[in-house]
Amino acid sequence: MGESRRLLSFSAGPALWPDTVLESVSEGLLPSAGGGLSVLEWSHRGEAYGRLHQRALERLRRLLGVEPSHEVLLLPGGATQQFAMVPANLRPPGGSADYLVTGHWARRASEYAARTGAINVVASSEDEGFSRIPPPERWRLDPRAAYFHLTTNNTIAGTQLHRLPRREAVPLVADVSSDVLLRDLPVANFDLLYAGAQKNLGPAGLAVVVIRRSLIEALAHGPEGVLGYRDHARSGSRLNTPPTALVFLLERMLAWIEAEGGREEMVRRARARAALVYDALDRHPDVYRLSVRREDRSVANVVFGLHSAEEERAFLAAAAAEGMVGLAGHRSVGGLRASLYAAMPVAGARRLAALIDAFAHRHRGAKNVSAPAPGGEGA
Amino acid sequence: MGESRRLLSFSAGPALWPDTVLESVSEGLLPSAGGGLSVLEWSHRGEAYGRLHQRALERLRRLLGVEPSHEVLLLPGGATQQFAMVPANLRPPGGSADYLVTGHWARRASEYAARTGAINVVASSEDEGFSRIPPPERWRLDPRAAYFHLTTNNTIAGTQLHRLPRREAVPLVADVSSDVLLRDLPVANFDLLYAGAQKNLGPAGLAVVVIRRSLIEALAHGPEGVLGYRDHARSGSRLNTPPTALVFLLERMLAWIEAEGGREEMVRRARARAALVYDALDRHPDVYRLSVRREDRSVANVVFGLHSAEEERAFLAAAAAEGMVGLAGHRSVGGLRASLYAAMPVAGARRLAALIDAFAHRHRGAKNVSAPAPGGEGA
Repeated sequence: MGESRRLLSFSAGPALWPDTVLESVSEGLLPSAGGGLSVLEWSHRGEAYGRLHQRALERLRRLLGVEPSHEVLLLPGGATQQFAMVPANLRPPGGSADYLVTGHWARRASEYAARTGAINVVASSEDEGFSRIPPPERWRLDPRAAYFHLTTNNTIAGTQLHRLPRREAVPLVADVSSDVLLRDLPVANFDLLYAGAQKNLGPAGLAVVVIRRSLIEALAHGPEGVLGYRDHARSGSRLNTPPTALVFLLERMLAWIEAEGGREEMVRRARARAALVYDALDRHPDVYRLSVRREDRSVANVVFGLHSAEEERAFLAAAAAEGMVGLAGHRSVGGLRASLYAAMPVAGARRLAALIDAFAHRHRGAKNVSAPAPGGEGA
Repeated sequence: MGESRRLLSFSAGPALWPDTVLESVSEGLLPSAGGGLSVLEWSHRGEAYGRLHQRALERLRRLLGVEPSHEVLLLPGGATQQFAMVPANLRPPGGSADYLVTGHWARRASEYAARTGAINVVASSEDEGFSRIPPPERWRLDPRAAYFHLTTNNTIAGTQLHRLPRREAVPLVADVSSDVLLRDLPVANFDLLYAGAQKNLGPAGLAVVVIRRSLIEALAHGPEGVLGYRDHARSGSRLNTPPTALVFLLERMLAWIEAEGGREEMVRRARARAALVYDALDRHPDVYRLSVRREDRSVANVVFGLHSAEEERAFLAAAAAEGMVGLAGHRSVGGLRASLYAAMPVAGARRLAALIDAFAHRHRGAKNVSAPAPGGEGA
């Protein structure tokens, strides 16, 4: 205890937390901070928890710029549970839903919906390894769809939907787990947004849902109770005992984000971090592979590789030696990935960029020594 | 901070935590305790979290006495989500399920099941205000039911099903949220047990499910993904990102329970606590009302009242003055309730018993002074 060096995590989630927030939640769990009871012991129907719960909702409302037209919900279970709740609530019996398949999780969302009813795949870039966003002119939208579901950022492929479609007659639904707060999201353009909290907002196991009030009113055919948005909205996200510890953690993270400057500052940092890392990679095209089309690059997840699995292991080891972890790519695709979520300091991205440069220089040096070009030019 | 006196919570959940566990989780959230990363930052696919997750499952297995015939699952969302998952997984299309309605939450479980299919109410004591368990000779069981659901303890009514039915041809399912670890539960007798963790096991927002492996195999018609037991079981409860912070809190509470002596000691304490509080109430039948039939009394929730709402407010104030809180009855029934969950020290129940005695004595004294009997006897 106390001996291990502080590590910097580039993991795709659960993501890193600022030290000051960790100190605040550590102290905040003690009874001395909670009026004689730990926050874990607060009744979910009591005043103290009620204020905390409300504060979390209000912070989300301010940070995301949510207008009174929309309701903010805190639901247990993460984004995957939303894959099931969205069609169960929004697609009437016999109806169909549109899905834009831009990555692994977008496909999973469509598969969940396909289990219980009809879907239409608007477009898919799976044939291209999800290395690009299918261009909008190729989207085949169904004007009678119950909703149109898209994923604003693809964590495994490292692509981002920079040009969001404008809402028309069909309700627009988006999974914004990985780039919420990292972009200026036009909330009013959407009928339903959801985000697993563990990337940009705090703890794993909690989903934030932003839903248009008029849509809630129209959910006559949707499920009641814990699997229905309507009943959660009516109860102010306290339909049953909420995961109070997770709401506490979320609220502390949101407080930090607001104190740091809110969404505007988070968007600024996201751009600064992504520029640092992509620029470093682009400086060494002979060393690093980037398969994502440049205009579809994600500010949240920088996906790259080297020219062999051995070199990638060497990169991971060099990063670990400098206290940087979580840089392995998703197990389904391999390679490398740097996830740059809201709590990642710009200085953290700078450290990674410096490593990318240094590794490339060492790498070229090592190559020149170990494998001189035939003919011995330059020797 | 640091100025408030430590309070003793008799709340029906989220329940109290031992001070040593709160200190342990407070320190355990810091990066110094987590190998340079906070446990909140651990990847849910990484080794460190994998060990924690496995340790929590193994502790549950030992504490509950779960044989290899059964699987233990950790699911997000609490017991209410199980109200929806049980029928969705276990009742085939066109099938019916048996429900024993012994209290508010038992009725809610049956209502959830009735929304999506047929149920048979085996028996109900609602007409008697749930003040007793319907006697088994009046249960009308359906031999073709998909399963038989019961609630082993009723937190609002304060009753407990002391004589559990033996499993026959119909799979036996039980909500054991409020008395798990407070009784010797014959796990092998059940096909599925579930418990919201926030009463006896730790944090709110997590459900522990114990399910017979042969039942999982038979769930061909059940839902896939996050709402299906099968996929959670196949993935070792890591189907999607689990609520890692809640699993951490759960594991620390279970470690404490094991160190204290495990289930045997928890059951002993539960009996000792209940005896202290019921004996004190029984000593003053002129002051306290107990509407629950004596043989159905719960060891987890002691439900009682005084003879007016004013007297009950006075009792709550007297308790608060001594640092005892959470003693108001459920908002649906009023009165008073002392919840005595696993982390409640026997000394805590002794403090409450002493208050029950002292309040009764003061109460009688006050009555004698303020309302002397006509004729002035004793004056």
